[in-house]
Amino acid sequence: IAKEVAKLLEMKAQLGGDEGKHKFVLKTPKGTRDYSPKQMAIRERVFDAIITCFKRHGAEVIDTPVFELKETLTGKYGEDSKLIYDLKDQGGELLSLRYDLTVPFARYLAMNKITNIKRYHIAKVYRRDNPAMTRGRYREFYQCDFDIAGQFDPMIPDAECLKIVHEILSDLQLGDFLIKVNDRRILDGMFAVCGVPDSKFRTICSSVDKLDKMPWEEVRSEMVGEKGLSPEAADRIGEYVQLHGGLDLIERLLQDPKLSQNKLAKEGLGDMKLLFEYLTLFGITGKISFDLSLARGLDYYTGVIFEAVLLQQENEHVEEPVSVGSVAGGGRYDGLVGMFDPKGRKVPCVGVSIGIERIFSILEQRVEASEEKIRTTETQVLVASAQKKLLEERLKLIAELWDAGIKAEVLYKKNPKLLNQLQYCEETGIPLVAIVGEQELKDGVVKLRVVATREEVNVRRENLVEEIRMRTNRP
Amino acid sequence: IAKEVAKLLEMKAQLGGDEGKHKFVLKTPKGTRDYSPKQMAIRERVFDAIITCFKRHGAEVIDTPVFELKETLTGKYGEDSKLIYDLKDQGGELLSLRYDLTVPFARYLAMNKITNIKRYHIAKVYRRDNPAMTRGRYREFYQCDFDIAGQFDPMIPDAECLKIVHEILSDLQLGDFLIKVNDRRILDGMFAVCGVPDSKFRTICSSVDKLDKMPWEEVRSEMVGEKGLSPEAADRIGEYVQLHGGLDLIERLLQDPKLSQNKLAKEGLGDMKLLFEYLTLFGITGKISFDLSLARGLDYYTGVIFEAVLLQQENEHVEEPVSVGSVAGGGRYDGLVGMFDPKGRKVPCVGVSIGIERIFSILEQRVEASEEKIRTTETQVLVASAQKKLLEERLKLIAELWDAGIKAEVLYKKNPKLLNQLQYCEETGIPLVAIVGEQELKDGVVKLRVVATREEVNVRRENLVEEIRMRTNRP
Repeated sequence: IAKEVAKLLEMKAQLGGDEGKHKFVLKTPKGTRDYSPKQMAIRERVFDAIITCFKRHGAEVIDTPVFELKETLTGKYGEDSKLIYDLKDQGGELLSLRYDLTVPFARYLAMNKITNIKRYHIAKVYRRDNPAMTRGRYREFYQCDFDIAGQFDPMIPDAECLKIVHEILSDLQLGDFLIKVNDRRILDGMFAVCGVPDSKFRTICSSVDKLDKMPWEEVRSEMVGEKGLSPEAADRIGEYVQLHGGLDLIERLLQDPKLSQNKLAKEGLGDMKLLFEYLTLFGITGKISFDLSLARGLDYYTGVIFEAVLLQQENEHVEEPVSVGSVAGGGRYDGLVGMFDPKGRKVPCVGVSIGIERIFSILEQRVEASEEKIRTTETQVLVASAQKKLLEERLKLIAELWDAGIKAEVLYKKNPKLLNQLQYCEETGIPLVAIVGEQELKDGVVKLRVVATREEVNVRRENLVEEIRMRTNRP
Repeated sequence: IAKEVAKLLEMKAQLGGDEGKHKFVLKTPKGTRDYSPKQMAIRERVFDAIITCFKRHGAEVIDTPVFELKETLTGKYGEDSKLIYDLKDQGGELLSLRYDLTVPFARYLAMNKITNIKRYHIAKVYRRDNPAMTRGRYREFYQCDFDIAGQFDPMIPDAECLKIVHEILSDLQLGDFLIKVNDRRILDGMFAVCGVPDSKFRTICSSVDKLDKMPWEEVRSEMVGEKGLSPEAADRIGEYVQLHGGLDLIERLLQDPKLSQNKLAKEGLGDMKLLFEYLTLFGITGKISFDLSLARGLDYYTGVIFEAVLLQQENEHVEEPVSVGSVAGGGRYDGLVGMFDPKGRKVPCVGVSIGIERIFSILEQRVEASEEKIRTTETQVLVASAQKKLLEERLKLIAELWDAGIKAEVLYKKNPKLLNQLQYCEETGIPLVAIVGEQELKDGVVKLRVVATREEVNVRRENLVEEIRMRTNRP
């Protein structure tokens, strides 16, 4: 009996399926989300500010595929490689979703033998990370990248990247922010003089990178416990990584008896000084901090690195502002393009990546709080009728408006009530209603109603387009 | 020894990696491509025309993730399901790249219980098809979708979708085009009266769909040979599928002794008549053809289907214009949302998808042929110097311009030659040069040079921004 029941239940389930009653898990994949029209309106504002800035700095734009050959991504991300999404082997090439826009950019340069370009690229990237969506951390997220490739005089492009971050974060009015700057050569020099063996540079660098999320004590025990660094070396690192400042600190470290003996560190500090001189000319040093604890995880950086964090004055009594997380980062990667070139020819590059998800979260919360009403369409006029049997007349009129470039809508009903049509305008923010009625048709006019004031005027049909344009073009 | 050799080889490979001399295949994945700045400029023009049209019709915009749960896509695409890209199972959910934007849209509606929306969505979709890139067929390609969801009076939204296709193809000036229209109900009715068994409707429909690429004889032999249809049934279908026309053909088929007896066909023909009446009001029937050979492969269509093809008058002596392929398609899918709803609640939908790759290919060829020079940046002014040692002054000036919203560039050289700076403007189309020199600095002016005319004027520094704006704002 049990068997028969099971059989029947299975049959029932199948029948259910045919009727379209599947038991779906109705969701987007973990760490991803849809954007609703309202969210898209906010997103467009952010993109607009960012693109405007990138264009202000003379950037061209490119696009690359969402996936790359798996080997293109291999060996570029160090410990983070485990977060790459691979595609299933369905025959043919092995593919992975892009992890960032930098590696595809380097591949693009090498493939097309481009040695000189300033470009931006805005697209989604993919990381199988632990999502924390309320804090704007997703598995699918946008990066807005600006990069300068080419052999140039030191630190001029690097300074421009920092200027761009400064401009964008100022434009978006996200509150106070701080751009931390360091240099891989200073870090490597520091590791060397602290007694870290060469082979451990990258892994110890990864540990230092965690200082924004962990206290020093934990990072230290990771270095010593997991990564086998001597406690003395760790303690020496501990002294350096608490340093941050400006030109004064750079000068002081250039005199540091140990660091100044290290070639790499000296080079890095010299360039850092030059960078700060250019940033002074740009007038932005107030929000820039040379910070020896900044490491950044990615393997491919070779010079300057930086990261912008938003500061939140959580409490007026707290003296130090609290960081609410990174919204932009970047740096110099002079070796990456050479990794793709058959002859290893290098193209020096420096770039910045703006992460919009956190910015977007903040702006979305702000809109919610302000009860600002965001329009999600740009419709200028609703074509309506006051009586029945005028669908044909509405369709004829709206085709005239569309053909003249007017943004117009009509309700998809044969005989909609005037009240419903007016209500639709109220709900969606359409400012004008063009009403056709039998009398208006006879007289060759259209009744134009202003939704906000309820004012109504008869407009001659041949003047309607001009009248709508005049009333909806912002001054 | 073998073990030691292996170890050495591994070490060598690692060293090779460090020197960046990997033997890479330097390419994008099969069926994909990069977009260069010039191609992006053309792409932006196409998007601009399409988005302007979608907004003119009052559409909101949404976005969804590039991948969906695998089961979301299951059972929606019939025979084409084999073309779906799956992601590798790396633990967690099973995912697939989206195959179109329609199924994610239906999932979005069901998930958010939306019963009424007019939205557009422009994004890349993925199909493991045989690419034919010269003809604009890719594995990663854009779709520009406009859909109307909701319970409305018959054929009004359907007619708007066709109006949109007509507007976009006219705006883009791609030459002559034809929009073929049919209805799944007419097809199914036709299959029934021709003696196709119910179980074979979908697969015979797939065969009919090939008529745009294959002659009837081949399609017929597929129906009879591979799919086991009786030769008589195939011949009856053969008679119908050669029919195409307008309102006259619809009227004739409504009188057809066999078709008029079939409930589905009669419904479809009645709606087709209504559709043509609305299209007449829109004034676009001249480019629309009711065509019984149009089938469209996708499983989810339930009513009107349509497809737009560009026509190429290859030779003036040839009477029939030759089709160069489909650039838009769509139709009604009233059951798809219900497949996602736990209670099977239906949301009727109709929509259109514009495929830009073929359009883009045509425009790209046209630009190449015309030798039109396309600017890939919007830079208004290059900040230059006539003498050495003025880098600091250039940086100070450009920061002023950026902060005032001027699009400006500077060469990343300490002491660039004036000639090189002017040449850069010629190459990239920058219209103005702001030249700082020692004398100008003393006098508090900047020398503004018009690249095209070589005219030079001294402008007081405080008036420079206004002067640049005036000279670069198009009238």
